Amino acid sequence: MKSELKPNVVGIDIGGTNSVFGIVDAQGNVLASNSIKTQAYPVLEEYINALGNGILDLIAKNGGIEKIKGIGVGAPNANYYTGNIEHAANLPWKGIVPFAKLLSEKVGVPVTLTNDANAAAIGEMKYGAARGMRDFIMITLGTGVGSGVVANGQLIYGHDGNAGELGHVIVRRDGRTCGCGNKGCLETYTSATGVARTAREMLQNRAGEDSLLRKIDLDKITSKDVFDAAMAGDAIAKDIFAFTGQILGEALADFVKFSSPEAFVLFGGLAKAGDLLLNPLKKAMDDNLMAVFKGKVKVLFSEMKDADAAVLGASALAWD
Amino acid sequence: MKSELKPNVVGIDIGGTNSVFGIVDAQGNVLASNSIKTQAYPVLEEYINALGNGILDLIAKNGGIEKIKGIGVGAPNANYYTGNIEHAANLPWKGIVPFAKLLSEKVGVPVTLTNDANAAAIGEMKYGAARGMRDFIMITLGTGVGSGVVANGQLIYGHDGNAGELGHVIVRRDGRTCGCGNKGCLETYTSATGVARTAREMLQNRAGEDSLLRKIDLDKITSKDVFDAAMAGDAIAKDIFAFTGQILGEALADFVKFSSPEAFVLFGGLAKAGDLLLNPLKKAMDDNLMAVFKGKVKVLFSEMKDADAAVLGASALAWD
Repeated sequence: MKSELKPNVVGIDIGGTNSVFGIVDAQGNVLASNSIKTQAYPVLEEYINALGNGILDLIAKNGGIEKIKGIGVGAPNANYYTGNIEHAANLPWKGIVPFAKLLSEKVGVPVTLTNDANAAAIGEMKYGAARGMRDFIMITLGTGVGSGVVANGQLIYGHDGNAGELGHVIVRRDGRTCGCGNKGCLETYTSATGVARTAREMLQNRAGEDSLLRKIDLDKITSKDVFDAAMAGDAIAKDIFAFTGQILGEALADFVKFSSPEAFVLFGGLAKAGDLLLNPLKKAMDDNLMAVFKGKVKVLFSEMKDADAAVLGASALAWD
Repeated sequence: MKSELKPNVVGIDIGGTNSVFGIVDAQGNVLASNSIKTQAYPVLEEYINALGNGILDLIAKNGGIEKIKGIGVGAPNANYYTGNIEHAANLPWKGIVPFAKLLSEKVGVPVTLTNDANAAAIGEMKYGAARGMRDFIMITLGTGVGSGVVANGQLIYGHDGNAGELGHVIVRRDGRTCGCGNKGCLETYTSATGVARTAREMLQNRAGEDSLLRKIDLDKITSKDVFDAAMAGDAIAKDIFAFTGQILGEALADFVKFSSPEAFVLFGGLAKAGDLLLNPLKKAMDDNLMAVFKGKVKVLFSEMKDADAAVLGASALAWD
């Protein structure tokens, strides 16, 4: 009966754009949730203050702090072992941030954190498309590209807690400049911002060709604009997704050679593109696999509601 | 006392060139060993016959079959779960070969097999450079390039037993043709045969330049010839290793992003090139890592005698 004294946990998903937090019960129900804008707080202390106050407010309205066992956080470059966020390219705070310590001091309950994509992988394994799988790879396609690798039924953290940075595998030698300091990283092509970059390049390279996307200021085109144009039949927009799917498929083929997963689970805004992305992706993946792997690897879309996978996965960390 | 009735096992390392087998005791001593030429037996049944007879002969001279608990095999594309060798590009037998079954019928003891590089990784973890490590990646640089990935202290087999084919990660899109059917695989550049290909290309591209390697028939240059020429100060030979090290370093940087290993352990003929390979490798790896990984990943050479790592690792499978 003792656990009923603290029947809930808090899950937090920190993304480059939004920070979503929710109260979760032991059955995986998100009882209440809210969010703040990550980029609105370039000063770390102000961010911790705003996030902590938002969480405390949500907790107060949902039974009080005595019901909360702990907080689990999914964030880019978050280190499970140290509780730090380390050199995250898509977050406003640079260097090594002692995130678990700061948030725990603010809210007054224990805080555990991991890579945001690792958290999504845990969520997908417990509640989503990867239920029952012992070997799969979660790929999150958001502002950046994240990954969580599960092998032998366990998340791979690596010797230092930093494993699973597949968004920074180099897919085009000397390719696009990445926030991480290298060139040609996967996420410079297959993130939402990567799709927008491809749109700008392709519209400039095919200057004589009509496109619905030309109605939008070149610097303001988003992946959502490209999706809408592709759904309306726009040739350039469809080619943008074909290119994105091809690069992602080539990369996934290389990842297969590492851990031979039963499936990839795709999550995030770009996954909504469905077959526009999936058809070229599957072809490129298959073209780049050896015989022993061909036709054996599933590519699935997340079965979780948008924010829930990461929030639920992150929350699961807080039970231990 | 019962285990003393069968105090030994047999380990077999099947390579594209040689098949080495040895009798191993529980302390990891190789009591006796021998080998046959793999390529001399293009017909599978003749190979099994020759290998089986070689093993039975060695066993007869070392205490008899009643002392042998079982046989462990390391081979390219060997599947731990099924006991099959599947579509191995560098072996003479095509398709799916029921290797464990055939050899067990021939010799009369149980046979377990795994990827040759997985076997080397087990050997290195138990007896070599990776003692005490929970996260490392074994890279074997032989006729081909193999790999064994250890994470959370366990070998990663993948959902189907085929994980760890990092020699076929594509490092140059539309690059050199590989035996696996794809182009630009790591092993077409950083295997012994890859080094010989680089030598031929570089000697042709720098036709006006003197080199010790020009004394050798272009089609007959081996990686050993390149090593000898480099040690003698030959500029082209040194550049061949610089190129090989750079490509391997770039690839290892991408592998770090997957499982964040404490170390890579290099094994095989090319590892003997030492600093000729290691210096450009370390520079390229570091140049292609994000800040969070820079300077943290060790690159070690195997501490096992040449054949022993694979034979010992393979033999360890036979105890279970």
